[in-house]
Amino acid sequence: MSNSSLDSFRGNISYNAQHSPLGAFFSFTCGLFGSRGGFGLQIGCPGNQNLFIGVKEGNRDARTPLKCLPFYEGASSDEAQRYDVENKSSQQDKSILIAYPPEQIVRRYGWATDEWDTGDFRFTLYSPFFPVPESMAGEAFRRSIMPAIVGELMIDNTQGVTPKTGVFAIYFPDPGARLSDDACGFSWRGQLGVRAELISDSPTNLETVMRWAIQDALCDPNPRHGLGNTPGLFVTIPPGQKATIKLALGVYLDHKVTTRLEGRYLYTRVFGSLEDVLETALTQFNTLKQRAQELDKELASTSLSPDQQWLIAHSTRSYHGSTQLLDVGGEPFWIVNEGEYCMMNTLDLSVDQVFWELRQHPWLVRNLLDRFVRHYSYIDCIKVPKNDKLKVEYAQQSGQDSMAGPRVLGRVLPMDAFELKPGGISFCHDMGVHNQFHPQGHSSYELPNLVGCFSYMTCEELCNWVLCAASYVAHTGDVNWTEQNESTIRACLESLINRSGEAGYVMYDSSRCQTGAEITTYDSLDHSLAQTRNNLYMAVKCWATYLGLELLLKRIGHPSADKAKEQAKRCMTRIVAQTRPEGILPAVFESDNPGFHSRILPAIEGLVYPAEWKIDVSSYQPLYETLKKHTLALLKDPQKRNLFPDGGIRLSSTSDNSWMSKIAIFQYVCRKVLGLDSDPDVKQLLQNADAAHVKWMTDGESAYWACSDQFVNGVAKGSKYYPRIVTTILWMTESKQSS
Amino acid sequence: MSNSSLDSFRGNISYNAQHSPLGAFFSFTCGLFGSRGGFGLQIGCPGNQNLFIGVKEGNRDARTPLKCLPFYEGASSDEAQRYDVENKSSQQDKSILIAYPPEQIVRRYGWATDEWDTGDFRFTLYSPFFPVPESMAGEAFRRSIMPAIVGELMIDNTQGVTPKTGVFAIYFPDPGARLSDDACGFSWRGQLGVRAELISDSPTNLETVMRWAIQDALCDPNPRHGLGNTPGLFVTIPPGQKATIKLALGVYLDHKVTTRLEGRYLYTRVFGSLEDVLETALTQFNTLKQRAQELDKELASTSLSPDQQWLIAHSTRSYHGSTQLLDVGGEPFWIVNEGEYCMMNTLDLSVDQVFWELRQHPWLVRNLLDRFVRHYSYIDCIKVPKNDKLKVEYAQQSGQDSMAGPRVLGRVLPMDAFELKPGGISFCHDMGVHNQFHPQGHSSYELPNLVGCFSYMTCEELCNWVLCAASYVAHTGDVNWTEQNESTIRACLESLINRSGEAGYVMYDSSRCQTGAEITTYDSLDHSLAQTRNNLYMAVKCWATYLGLELLLKRIGHPSADKAKEQAKRCMTRIVAQTRPEGILPAVFESDNPGFHSRILPAIEGLVYPAEWKIDVSSYQPLYETLKKHTLALLKDPQKRNLFPDGGIRLSSTSDNSWMSKIAIFQYVCRKVLGLDSDPDVKQLLQNADAAHVKWMTDGESAYWACSDQFVNGVAKGSKYYPRIVTTILWMTESKQSS
Repeated sequence: MSNSSLDSFRGNISYNAQHSPLGAFFSFTCGLFGSRGGFGLQIGCPGNQNLFIGVKEGNRDARTPLKCLPFYEGASSDEAQRYDVENKSSQQDKSILIAYPPEQIVRRYGWATDEWDTGDFRFTLYSPFFPVPESMAGEAFRRSIMPAIVGELMIDNTQGVTPKTGVFAIYFPDPGARLSDDACGFSWRGQLGVRAELISDSPTNLETVMRWAIQDALCDPNPRHGLGNTPGLFVTIPPGQKATIKLALGVYLDHKVTTRLEGRYLYTRVFGSLEDVLETALTQFNTLKQRAQELDKELASTSLSPDQQWLIAHSTRSYHGSTQLLDVGGEPFWIVNEGEYCMMNTLDLSVDQVFWELRQHPWLVRNLLDRFVRHYSYIDCIKVPKNDKLKVEYAQQSGQDSMAGPRVLGRVLPMDAFELKPGGISFCHDMGVHNQFHPQGHSSYELPNLVGCFSYMTCEELCNWVLCAASYVAHTGDVNWTEQNESTIRACLESLINRSGEAGYVMYDSSRCQTGAEITTYDSLDHSLAQTRNNLYMAVKCWATYLGLELLLKRIGHPSADKAKEQAKRCMTRIVAQTRPEGILPAVFESDNPGFHSRILPAIEGLVYPAEWKIDVSSYQPLYETLKKHTLALLKDPQKRNLFPDGGIRLSSTSDNSWMSKIAIFQYVCRKVLGLDSDPDVKQLLQNADAAHVKWMTDGESAYWACSDQFVNGVAKGSKYYPRIVTTILWMTESKQSS
Repeated sequence: MSNSSLDSFRGNISYNAQHSPLGAFFSFTCGLFGSRGGFGLQIGCPGNQNLFIGVKEGNRDARTPLKCLPFYEGASSDEAQRYDVENKSSQQDKSILIAYPPEQIVRRYGWATDEWDTGDFRFTLYSPFFPVPESMAGEAFRRSIMPAIVGELMIDNTQGVTPKTGVFAIYFPDPGARLSDDACGFSWRGQLGVRAELISDSPTNLETVMRWAIQDALCDPNPRHGLGNTPGLFVTIPPGQKATIKLALGVYLDHKVTTRLEGRYLYTRVFGSLEDVLETALTQFNTLKQRAQELDKELASTSLSPDQQWLIAHSTRSYHGSTQLLDVGGEPFWIVNEGEYCMMNTLDLSVDQVFWELRQHPWLVRNLLDRFVRHYSYIDCIKVPKNDKLKVEYAQQSGQDSMAGPRVLGRVLPMDAFELKPGGISFCHDMGVHNQFHPQGHSSYELPNLVGCFSYMTCEELCNWVLCAASYVAHTGDVNWTEQNESTIRACLESLINRSGEAGYVMYDSSRCQTGAEITTYDSLDHSLAQTRNNLYMAVKCWATYLGLELLLKRIGHPSADKAKEQAKRCMTRIVAQTRPEGILPAVFESDNPGFHSRILPAIEGLVYPAEWKIDVSSYQPLYETLKKHTLALLKDPQKRNLFPDGGIRLSSTSDNSWMSKIAIFQYVCRKVLGLDSDPDVKQLLQNADAAHVKWMTDGESAYWACSDQFVNGVAKGSKYYPRIVTTILWMTESKQSS
């Protein structure tokens, strides 16, 4: 009865997934049994509705149980045990709602298809995605940002001897539900809704229901009441027949949704109302379904393992739910919200998502780059210790030596220990939070006088902007944009040189930190990855950034390209020189820093960029060799300090925190750039890790949060409902097409 | 230190009150200790924020406790006990938040001023109200619908020897808070916010704070963080000084807020943004405060008792929170939402609120009348039993004989027992719910095939429209409107005659009920008031409606005025004829109906209308005499069947349900129309009842719900957060001005 070529998912099928169009900051989330979900609009978490998707024997008001997918609070195994289709006594019970037990449900999870099959019926959600054309004219643009997904509920009564009634209903705890006037759907406060169309050979009609408890409503002489909070649709199918309810699930906000920079959704330029969105989605149902199935096939036909394919499908969905394409003053404004935190365009996420976005719609990356320059760049100074004694103290200033959790203020040098020297341009951590743009030139996240979480990420964000820009130009060859941005690019080079000093990698903190110190995107990791200065991860990233600057400056024939190259070489030399006798690079290049003894895998993250840019790196073989040895040593460590007990990847040997998005890049560089999987042990290790990572997502806390990034010992503890794991898209390029 | 001439409230001061402008469906609710409140926008309940309004000794970051009004969850007496200003050890504790114990707080509650005084500081909210002019031009219109209230926080450090820091902050559980760019306020998602201005002789400034816990934020080196959810304002006042923070608390929704009939708030015609609203409110602060104090004085200077004054002030506030003035297609659209239920323009509430609205802005009553005719009127048939046997059965068909709670379907006659005869025009129970207009000609509430709650109120709503119309015309003398509506008025007469049959009062149910039967506004009372047919309350209301029709038709010189008068007389005769030997009228004129033995006080409710219209009722003396005797008998009943044990008024002797709005009308008619308070026992009884009713509001469940209508044994069980209790305004006309 499968709807597609998809295989059944063999793991724990009880996990949430986001089902989202692009750019609407909307997700229809479901999948975790016994929990609420449904429509979530502009929130960093699943919705708060109970979904009732099921069938009952007989007509709508038959005194038979309504058997639903367990997509509602209380759909526990206890209730499921009451389900016994052979038990005739149950037919005497009125108003019984029961959930299918997990073992009676098959789930098929493709790139854009999510399907639950109970035997009695099949419920499928399609969330196809399209590149967004830069021109707003034309159907392709309209389709690509249509704020709706589609689904279908197929009820098979071909073997039945009595009628069967199929139901799709949603309980809205917040008031404002209503049925549509034409009895083909329902909506909530004009902001979101469902529209349906019945496909059936038999002379049956779609009807509506709206009261409180769905099972009671169906049996009530008055199935519809204006005061109800559980609108729904149902159809009764005669024995020997089957029917399909096509569903459009969409949203529409027509007003300003952001403050300071006042933005509306860009889809309001091409859709007139919620009704327009839903009607269009239904009209295009077949196209959308076909596109979803093509995407499923594209992923399924790769040579990637089922675990890898699942991680790509899961992270793609989560990414789309966080996207928001606005119209600010007549111009498109691209935003990816930061998962549960809803920070807007967190730049250290953007740099990871660029691999996906360049594949889909490079102009949105350009939009992001431009918006950062125009609204969220700033000029700072750097803090240089006044003398050598202070320099030593500065180096010793580090956070707590705890295994996990954010670092707190340790010994701190006062501002007068430093001379302020020119820093240069950098970029804010983010543009605001929860639809509230922050004052220009400032992020919502960063604060002064800290050495841990919420401190500034000045140098890393500088690198991130350059890496995005170089990736954009390498991918598109957009010389025009590069020329337009010459002054910014040169300012970036100057700024990075100032921060790097003689080392080539970042040595100094921004004056914006005041008495604090810069951190990296690994803000809640330990000293091994949180400190920016003299940090291995940042050093390799600085090296890649110089390569990116060289690439950009070369494109426009600017002589300072050579300076960038010189800095890259200097940076390489200094990194290589840090190698310890055992062939390992310390996480922090400060021998009295606790991070000196940490062993970190993201050391190689920076290598992803030259590979993606397809540039000649032959002059940097020493760095590659050093990092290869380092990585192999860590992976083959007999103490397995960089693995969790379940085989998942531990990014830092001294922390229980690991980030899935960063693991995906690491795995890619490991295989594609360094070729480490030619070693069968490493290959197996990486495969085992994939399996562990899937379990991280489907089991425990993350099962509710659809897709998480930050795991502590394999348990999602932060960065949930997250877009960044879409770095898994890098793996697609590793695949040999099997067809 | 009092701010006004208001006396301290001597009862339980821990109760919520709504503080609302007119027409914005917005309330800033607070007052119940230990509970959340704050901004509530378009919801039928208090907001979900914790309010932190308090002071600390020292500068903002002093390690001293922050002492607040107990307007936050967890502000329990336990915490209050920790408050000991003499305990020096507390100064070593960082981040301590404590609540003032109730006994240290004085509350002053006027018509438009609500004030809490702790000795250390005084927090006052002003919610003045104005008549809304019909013309949108001019400052008076703008002020009357400005969607903001104002308040002030006065911190007195004149006796202090150290600085004192005063704080006003709000914890928003839903994300989207931000500080204003000019550091004078904060807002939430551009929809609601606070703006402040400091009045101080000392050179001190207002500053902002925004993190998570307010007490920690104040002590933090970084008091402001973009990710915070508790924005606030603070000021540090040197010893020997005092300072006042003026506050504007406002809302602004610029988009369509209703569906089907798509409405925006009318205030968007005269205010451009939330900032405009808040700035205007601050600019007009003195005017608004003065107006509030004038209103306080107006109420205080009446000869009404403190209990009565309190009930008027409390109900006026609750009424305003439910009001919503929209712009639908360029025309004003007046809505009063039904408290916690949020049904729109429930007509059986409108008829009670008309006394207030005619006093304030009669054109809004006209708006309501017109909207009902245009969108929510309908034509039905009536159900006439086919023969005498069926007529007897029909009369015996009644609900359960339970003391309380909605009636359920009893013995029911099938539709074929009836002949359908012409009914006529009537009006829907409501226009929709929760901003969702219902399809035209239908209410969100009414359903067929019921004899209890949710059945049709066809005849009562017909009466209600006529009573509103007659009240409007009697008050304004608007002959033009009466002429324009001649056909509707005549249709109402015809419809009421059809429903009344030979009795003059309603005898038949609407065909819309199908097998069900009509109910009255007392939908959850017992048989004594729920059944419409042959019901004493409805009979007197029908009589008053005929008088209203006569009034309207006379104004335009239409001959059918005589017919109306004839019907009124017929109705009176029939009612008077029902008098039992003991001088009491049965609640239901059906001797085998359980309601036959109920004794109901709202029998006299209909008498309020001729009194308000100031028409000659000399021809109806028998009715007045009968009702007077009936009421006196009930009030002087040795068994006290129409009183609760606490002295509160029991509307029906056979039900524990009582409605405060209806009690207020009853009390008014008792005194002003029937003069029953010339009997000192009755006078005392009514005074005792007032005291009981105040306690109903301030103690127990209703303390959270600000102002409730439906009480079961004095406990608010339904119809909470309700507008209708504004019927207390009738009492104002009883008062002899004491000044």
